[in-house]
Amino acid sequence: MDRASHLADVLEQHHPAAAATLSALGRRLFFPQGIPAQSAEARGTRINATIGQITDGHGKPLALPSMLSCLGDLDPGEATLYAAQGGRSDLREAWRDHVRADDPGCGSRVSLPVATGGLTHALSMVADLFAGPGRPVLLPAPCWGNYRAIFGTRRQAPLIPWNLLRSTRGPDGWLDLDSLRDAVGSLEQPALLLLNFPSNPTGYSPTAAEVDGIVDIVAHSPVPLAVLTDDAYQGMWWEPDCYAHSLFHRLSLLPPDRVLAIKVDGATKEFLYFGGRVGFLTFGCEGPAADALDDKARGIARSVISSVSATAQVLVLHMLRDPGIRAQQDDVRERLRARYEALKAAIDRHGLRALPFNSGMFALLAVDGDAEALRLALLAEGLGVVAFAESSALRLSYGSVDRDDIDELVAGIARLARR
Amino acid sequence: MDRASHLADVLEQHHPAAAATLSALGRRLFFPQGIPAQSAEARGTRINATIGQITDGHGKPLALPSMLSCLGDLDPGEATLYAAQGGRSDLREAWRDHVRADDPGCGSRVSLPVATGGLTHALSMVADLFAGPGRPVLLPAPCWGNYRAIFGTRRQAPLIPWNLLRSTRGPDGWLDLDSLRDAVGSLEQPALLLLNFPSNPTGYSPTAAEVDGIVDIVAHSPVPLAVLTDDAYQGMWWEPDCYAHSLFHRLSLLPPDRVLAIKVDGATKEFLYFGGRVGFLTFGCEGPAADALDDKARGIARSVISSVSATAQVLVLHMLRDPGIRAQQDDVRERLRARYEALKAAIDRHGLRALPFNSGMFALLAVDGDAEALRLALLAEGLGVVAFAESSALRLSYGSVDRDDIDELVAGIARLARR
Repeated sequence: MDRASHLADVLEQHHPAAAATLSALGRRLFFPQGIPAQSAEARGTRINATIGQITDGHGKPLALPSMLSCLGDLDPGEATLYAAQGGRSDLREAWRDHVRADDPGCGSRVSLPVATGGLTHALSMVADLFAGPGRPVLLPAPCWGNYRAIFGTRRQAPLIPWNLLRSTRGPDGWLDLDSLRDAVGSLEQPALLLLNFPSNPTGYSPTAAEVDGIVDIVAHSPVPLAVLTDDAYQGMWWEPDCYAHSLFHRLSLLPPDRVLAIKVDGATKEFLYFGGRVGFLTFGCEGPAADALDDKARGIARSVISSVSATAQVLVLHMLRDPGIRAQQDDVRERLRARYEALKAAIDRHGLRALPFNSGMFALLAVDGDAEALRLALLAEGLGVVAFAESSALRLSYGSVDRDDIDELVAGIARLARR
Repeated sequence: MDRASHLADVLEQHHPAAAATLSALGRRLFFPQGIPAQSAEARGTRINATIGQITDGHGKPLALPSMLSCLGDLDPGEATLYAAQGGRSDLREAWRDHVRADDPGCGSRVSLPVATGGLTHALSMVADLFAGPGRPVLLPAPCWGNYRAIFGTRRQAPLIPWNLLRSTRGPDGWLDLDSLRDAVGSLEQPALLLLNFPSNPTGYSPTAAEVDGIVDIVAHSPVPLAVLTDDAYQGMWWEPDCYAHSLFHRLSLLPPDRVLAIKVDGATKEFLYFGGRVGFLTFGCEGPAADALDDKARGIARSVISSVSATAQVLVLHMLRDPGIRAQQDDVRERLRARYEALKAAIDRHGLRALPFNSGMFALLAVDGDAEALRLALLAEGLGVVAFAESSALRLSYGSVDRDDIDELVAGIARLARR
């Protein structure tokens, strides 16, 4: 039996929802038994002539002096030689511990995370595995525009929008659960549901009651679902009624014949390492099903980027192991929280209307008329914002604005919006 | 007109071969006018609320102290904030200078290189742009196994092998130009021809006369061709009759209505930065056609990895700017050359048969019987090599073997191969 058929059998037996939701490409994928696999087997041999990298012959790098002069205290081998396919195993273990530390007490299923070249790369791997013709993707509206490029332009999956937020507050919060229920209820083939909280671009996170609602809708889907939580902005919750965990954990406990939970997260925002390009892809299962999905994920990474930057992996591992890291993250989060409070106050003060926001680092301002024209007018005054023309809205990122500048930014928008 | 149609028109007019050889996905691709594009426009604004990264509000990073402690003399902003889509412009310019420095005096056409997440990522971008159903790929046999995953499994392009080396030396060298001529001559639709010198796994590079032969075959192709030179091992030429340049330069001068030259290279082997994951994708054209292909290349990168590791880009740029870097590279190359000489002598001494090799860091030993069984037997004796079972051969990488161990390695292979 070939490798892809073997993996299909494993998933049929141990995780029918994963088997049902894979795309045609996802079904074909496996980690090839080529050079990296043969190199892994040869680790520790006396003479290792397997891998196409240059060393002194005893595992030590021959990094150029010009490179060495930049590495500070980093180990030259760890920083410049190939990292394992799928990521360094110590980093993968450390990230699994990090994910488990967020478990809200439900005892979630967590596979060994696969390291990816940033969150976009993790999303593109999910697209390769679970999206495509015949495998629609349910996207919140509004959403990050790159989802359309990743799942639509590139993979040609049918994109089904559901309306994220109601125009008036419901009993449990602002989420438009009716729209989500309708979108899921109308599905006729296995699909991928994408959830993104704290949301980009709205900055909304659900309440605990709304999370119950989402889990209930997923549990009653008429078709097997892969449910992806894009947790890029995890940890940035500013209001006491925000559900302050990833939704992945509870979703991972739904029956494996109906639902596969998938988590995408990374060091980009959580550890303020935007340029590093270290993300992770984790599945809500363990045992043989997790191993089979890991094989497929490493298989697609192998043919798209091979491995993840070793230098960046070392730096992320260093942060994960630092006992003081939580306090350092909290310091930055307190700065963001102060900006959030200032932004809320400024929006009220200047009479603008924002979609509900309580978390993350964005707010979406509803504007009358042409959002793109307003963006260009603001640019001319030295104010940079992003236009979401299809929502007639402007996205503000307060991650990159000094608290003391927020009032001026909002005042400028209010002035030009009324012209 | 939509963006993809606009780019198609530009290519039809300025580079018909590029227009003809694009895959269906390649035709759809463009760089979306989303957040990165709007952020680029907002660069330098007084208050910039466009981009989803966290700074002090004045462009300076809020990198965590744990991260800062590892960065040595690197600039924290350059090392940890987002790099531009397509790569830092100073790095892209420096790499173009580096490519041009290899021009054999023919005045080649060289686009501004797009930075990629390593060479595999550059290859996968070429696959997305130019391979797929209806866009066959001509691969040398034997070749690096990952080509089949990148172009076949993932993109489902028909793979057409041509036989790389003759069994006896021809008048100009060992290349099987008849096989290449037959493969190209049999094409009935636009195709991608992949050339890889110094070759992985054989370690062969053509002579100047053989390069003339390749260029002639490409120039007389019955269909438009995209010709990709995978120059991973560029600069590692050990014999005086090796053609010591990339073939890209001469191919870039062929008529743009018939041939598009494409170059994939990177810091991985040339600058011994294996784990860094910095590669480049360059097209053999300039002006509007180069701009259109650049747009498409950044478009696919945006939906697959977004940007390339900023930390790794800084390190590569530092090396490119170091006036002593050539001498540092030459030091390593002299070590490799000494291993090459030792390997040639050992193969002769122990009566083994290698396919012709004169460059790079590999040699392919022909073995009788089951190469995989022989690999496992060698593993048990502490000797690690890679089996190319379909070629009944073992690949030795002398990049990772001490010169003083080469005789023992070859002796071990000879002993077990004769059992």
